[in-house]
Amino acid sequence: MTYKESILDPQGEAVKTALHRLDYQTVEKVTVGKYFELNIADRGQNIDEEVDQMCDQLLANVNMESYRYEIESTTTEG
Amino acid sequence: MTYKESILDPQGEAVKTALHRLDYQTVEKVTVGKYFELNIADRGQNIDEEVDQMCDQLLANVNMESYRYEIESTTTEG
Repeated sequence: MTYKESILDPQGEAVKTALHRLDYQTVEKVTVGKYFELNIADRGQNIDEEVDQMCDQLLANVNMESYRYEIESTTTEG
Repeated sequence: MTYKESILDPQGEAVKTALHRLDYQTVEKVTVGKYFELNIADRGQNIDEEVDQMCDQLLANVNMESYRYEIESTTTEG
């Protein structure tokens, strides 16, 4: 989850400045965002739709933030 | 960047509770973390090493947080 392009990202700018001060001059741009990792039980639901709804309803501030997600399937025994 | 397994993640617990309240009962675990996207100029340096150093020196609190990263190469014209 990161700020949309049109929204200023002062935290990213601050991190970039700090990295330059540590002599990492190769860093051209820094974007800071949030990261959520969810373990979701597969009960035959439409996972993509469910994750989209969760992002829109709770996780993302859809006015200011954009999000993307990846679904990975895992297997647990028992 | 997420908290290490041994460190409590109250924010993740709070998000899980909120999702359950919105009737997303399939959510079993939530981990909340930080996300950094860096554009780095390729000047022939060892990118992996550079990113490792940046994480250790500035981005991650190595006592409490674990990190992982992916390098993607992009091409810009001009």
